Amino acid sequence: MELDVAFLPRAGVTDVAVVIDVLRMTTTATTLLQRGMEELVIVADTRAAIALAGETESLLFGERHGLPYPGFHGGNSPVEHAAVDYAGRSAILCTTNGSKAVEAVNSATHVLLGSIVNAKAVARLALELADERITLVCAGTDGDVSLDDVLGAGCIAVEVLANGGELYLTDAAKIALKMALSPDGVFATLAQSEHASTMRELGFAADVDYAARASTLNLVAKRVAREPSRFAPVAVDPL
Amino acid sequence: MELDVAFLPRAGVTDVAVVIDVLRMTTTATTLLQRGMEELVIVADTRAAIALAGETESLLFGERHGLPYPGFHGGNSPVEHAAVDYAGRSAILCTTNGSKAVEAVNSATHVLLGSIVNAKAVARLALELADERITLVCAGTDGDVSLDDVLGAGCIAVEVLANGGELYLTDAAKIALKMALSPDGVFATLAQSEHASTMRELGFAADVDYAARASTLNLVAKRVAREPSRFAPVAVDPL
Repeated sequence: MELDVAFLPRAGVTDVAVVIDVLRMTTTATTLLQRGMEELVIVADTRAAIALAGETESLLFGERHGLPYPGFHGGNSPVEHAAVDYAGRSAILCTTNGSKAVEAVNSATHVLLGSIVNAKAVARLALELADERITLVCAGTDGDVSLDDVLGAGCIAVEVLANGGELYLTDAAKIALKMALSPDGVFATLAQSEHASTMRELGFAADVDYAARASTLNLVAKRVAREPSRFAPVAVDPL
Repeated sequence: MELDVAFLPRAGVTDVAVVIDVLRMTTTATTLLQRGMEELVIVADTRAAIALAGETESLLFGERHGLPYPGFHGGNSPVEHAAVDYAGRSAILCTTNGSKAVEAVNSATHVLLGSIVNAKAVARLALELADERITLVCAGTDGDVSLDDVLGAGCIAVEVLANGGELYLTDAAKIALKMALSPDGVFATLAQSEHASTMRELGFAADVDYAARASTLNLVAKRVAREPSRFAPVAVDPL
């Protein structure tokens, strides 16, 4: 089994792709599932998201450049959603970078949403689904590599190593792994990211702390077969 | 001053670009200068390199996929060249990844060749030359991110931080920095790279050890103004 990391989204990913947007899309998506949400539709284009919301009973959540978008039912803050009951609901999630990353890995057989908060669960599900390769795909920020996403990939890589058998790690996977194993620790490393600074400036410091709590959630958003943008929850046994 | 790292070569780099191919092109280039070489011409295309060598008195060094190329005067092993006297000579250097990286950053105002062995010297020269931005450009391996080059970028970033004034580090620069500051140390981290494995398999284990010795050389190959492929040595005061 090969474990690879893409520092930025790229086309042509095969087998299992784990999309990672720690601050904040994939952290928020996992949180929404934990609060009972039955389905998530990930859409990159704002107009398409608004149109889709008008045709369905779905809630519409998201942001542009960190801030809630006018007309949306809610933003992209995990803490905002962490205590709300969404049992039986569905939501459309439209964000700046994470949604584009989901579109980029369309060719993968399985697409999962990974974050630090579900690192263990997503690692175990990825190992279960993969035939030969798991690619951890960092969303990045407008085409630039993001420390928060590479750190998230590293946290998931740690759990893949802990749960997997014989693994071949690419150099990119080794780099991500070293980020997660940095003596600074996950909290301080995440706080050093440019994205964390932006979050603090916008008043979302609590989201950064929340996003750094490793493996607190045991749900994974998994793409529904043959539906490129629909994701449903998979619960992973917390062992 | 901004310090950025490109994990793979990219076009559009401005101001100062430091091309890094630790195993082995930029390590070898620095070694050749230390042995008295007065000029290096970096050429990616093998046929063009051979044609150019036929027209000049230059030596022709390089490799394809790690091994010396037939008809070349020598290979791309720094250890092979480390005791030879090249006073007053010039050489054409034609390698798999490093030469292509030099071509990719053609738009930069200044292009330097950086490695672990001249980390301090290249950091200080880059700071001296830069107006607003230093980009450490990792050569990578056939389009994949290479641990050895990101580690090299980290080693140079450490020296930029030690010598520079107010610096803004991009997330990519912070990731590279963490590689150089890994508790494993530079030797062990370099040895973990895929490229180091290949070198050991091909019988070049000594090159890996040589390439990991930080700041042993105080020369930097600097692109000659308005000559995209010609590099001349600049000696940097060892302070």
